[in-house]
Amino acid sequence: MALYVQKFGGSSVANIERIGQVADKVQRFHADGHQIVVVLSAMSGETNRLLGLAREISSSPSPREQDLLVSTGEQVTIALLAMALEQRGVPAVSMTGWQVPIRTDSAHGKARVQEIDGDHVRERLNAGSVVVVAGFQGVDLDGHVTTLGRGGSDTTAVALAAVLKADECQIYTDVDGVYTTDPRVVAEARRLDSITFEEMLEMASQGSRILQIRSVEFAGKYNVPLRVLHSFQDGPGTLITTEQETPMEQPIISGIAFNRDEAKLTIRGVADTPGVAFRILGPISAANIEVDVIVQNVAEEDNTTDLTFTVGRQDYEQALHILQQTGEELGARQVTGTTSIAKVSIIGVGMRSHAGVASRMFAALARENINIQMISTSEIKVSVVIDEKYTELAVRALHGEFGLDTPLVTRA
Amino acid sequence: MALYVQKFGGSSVANIERIGQVADKVQRFHADGHQIVVVLSAMSGETNRLLGLAREISSSPSPREQDLLVSTGEQVTIALLAMALEQRGVPAVSMTGWQVPIRTDSAHGKARVQEIDGDHVRERLNAGSVVVVAGFQGVDLDGHVTTLGRGGSDTTAVALAAVLKADECQIYTDVDGVYTTDPRVVAEARRLDSITFEEMLEMASQGSRILQIRSVEFAGKYNVPLRVLHSFQDGPGTLITTEQETPMEQPIISGIAFNRDEAKLTIRGVADTPGVAFRILGPISAANIEVDVIVQNVAEEDNTTDLTFTVGRQDYEQALHILQQTGEELGARQVTGTTSIAKVSIIGVGMRSHAGVASRMFAALARENINIQMISTSEIKVSVVIDEKYTELAVRALHGEFGLDTPLVTRA
Repeated sequence: MALYVQKFGGSSVANIERIGQVADKVQRFHADGHQIVVVLSAMSGETNRLLGLAREISSSPSPREQDLLVSTGEQVTIALLAMALEQRGVPAVSMTGWQVPIRTDSAHGKARVQEIDGDHVRERLNAGSVVVVAGFQGVDLDGHVTTLGRGGSDTTAVALAAVLKADECQIYTDVDGVYTTDPRVVAEARRLDSITFEEMLEMASQGSRILQIRSVEFAGKYNVPLRVLHSFQDGPGTLITTEQETPMEQPIISGIAFNRDEAKLTIRGVADTPGVAFRILGPISAANIEVDVIVQNVAEEDNTTDLTFTVGRQDYEQALHILQQTGEELGARQVTGTTSIAKVSIIGVGMRSHAGVASRMFAALARENINIQMISTSEIKVSVVIDEKYTELAVRALHGEFGLDTPLVTRA
Repeated sequence: MALYVQKFGGSSVANIERIGQVADKVQRFHADGHQIVVVLSAMSGETNRLLGLAREISSSPSPREQDLLVSTGEQVTIALLAMALEQRGVPAVSMTGWQVPIRTDSAHGKARVQEIDGDHVRERLNAGSVVVVAGFQGVDLDGHVTTLGRGGSDTTAVALAAVLKADECQIYTDVDGVYTTDPRVVAEARRLDSITFEEMLEMASQGSRILQIRSVEFAGKYNVPLRVLHSFQDGPGTLITTEQETPMEQPIISGIAFNRDEAKLTIRGVADTPGVAFRILGPISAANIEVDVIVQNVAEEDNTTDLTFTVGRQDYEQALHILQQTGEELGARQVTGTTSIAKVSIIGVGMRSHAGVASRMFAALARENINIQMISTSEIKVSVVIDEKYTELAVRALHGEFGLDTPLVTRA
């Protein structure tokens, strides 16, 4: 008998029929003798509907009131699923964030979980009930309802799994696992049986948006085995776990990620004085624009430097405007930018112990005549920025180069 | 500076525009220096929408889960109104039932308020905030969300007013006060400046369904001055209060109520033995059919008796079927019934000290050739059951007879 925390997202509980399908699935696990905690999101679209009502009233609604408002979305789905389970003869009880309680700080709209009291949940589990918990929400020390921010239901599930020492935290989604790369781009892309937390973090931040990054970090920190599964198809999914002790069996590269949602900006011919990077990027950050890749090369002979960085494509116009102002202030020679770029990354814990992975990547791209505009590396990742039109070509070339087209030895 | 509890029903918060109008009204009271607690219902239709979802899942959804589900309706409106107030520069904070907290028993769907802790509310009022409380809901000792049943928002408002010792509990509705009778039937019907709790109870149970009976009882018990006002029109409304010490200034009759939603059933020629009334009405109650007027006359010379009673018209067919069975068992001579009846009542605390009110009523009806089928009296009310087609004629005749066509001396 195992204890599972099972999280279902908004599209899995989008209507009464789907809620019934989730109940059927949970019922099977319960019938097999497992203890089940279900974590739910709001029906898809409901959170946006509620936020729309708030925006009709005020352009800057009180964060406290907004949290109380949107937290009703999950309250509805947990009550409905508990009813559906009881209708099937499965004892069930729903719990809101404050009923568990899930204690958070008071940062409305992006609260962080501080402490979960698992006693109520455990008591109900031991009495044989399925416990259905509202994701995405908590309560602060003053009794105000808080929300964890978008995707926070994953965090709720992982945090509950950690506190309850669950055997597995299962995240049910609209995909059947984590793939070596996007199957729409590379037909040979394969589902991974397992992936490490660190690799998953890099895959997620690179655009494989299956799991919320925070929840993966959280799972890694508390060593909660996390499994990504399809909501309505059977299958083993992908287990996200700590690094195996047998690196020799691991492939060097676990996956290829790519992101076409970025834009690139360059400022040229700026006097290379201490603090110049801050003077350039400070105003960008101040405008709440997130910067991803940053590359600054060594200074030119005339003691000026060039700096290039990428931002989300939706922020491009605003970032360009800010950078042009900064350029004037600093007497820059030129400010340029483009949105037609893509970032392609190879990811794998195996590259730590293998030299030459980056150069093998560059060679593969060169063979396809793909020019590399920027390079950025981390311990388990190498990213390049290239012309957007070569994205598919680059991903396919790298997928083949690193042996991902052929089945792996099953890991974990 | 006064402390007002102001309750707005579902049609007053049916959409964003109306919520804005409520905020405008509350803002004016706040600007005048008053302390304001607002109690809200869910947007009209929302509770039924949520109950519809529950019924799609289960024909008998768990009452606990159903309460958690429908309580989201008020949670949405309180958050939106608090936002609208803050948008207008009025400090405001919303509170759900559990946040106040409003403690109830555990009778889900029809919970009774047991205790309200007014400290949180008072603290916020003293800090200058408007406090917006979710009506209709509470929390039991185990932390389960409960609801007070339909119309329970009135009860929430009155209970809060009692605990906070509010100067007035104002119930905003779609009428501008309590009338001497239905203005659609008698053009001369007038708004009453005031009415006693007892009179209001009789008016309400007679079909003037402005206020929930329970909330009026509650207000009377705790001596909370209650005022009925129009949500979107200015005016003094009607104050519902304890009986004045100056009965000479009071009219004998405060209002005429009538009800066309009842049906009449008669069983004739039953042996007049002890317990016969119970044997007749027991099976009706057992079927959860509410009985209103009951009349049993003295036994006939052959020691048989007749019994007549009224039920809600929607229960007529079922009640007739039950009564026919009972009639066979008891060897009754005849079982008859009709739905074409109306009940007309005169109501007034003044009749306590005035003899002959009932006979004056009967005389007025006789002058119009209206036959009286049943008579039932209480200390402050006389009801008659008549043929439905004479309803308007009877109400108009009585309205004139008791001087309600002419303006009253203002009471209270």
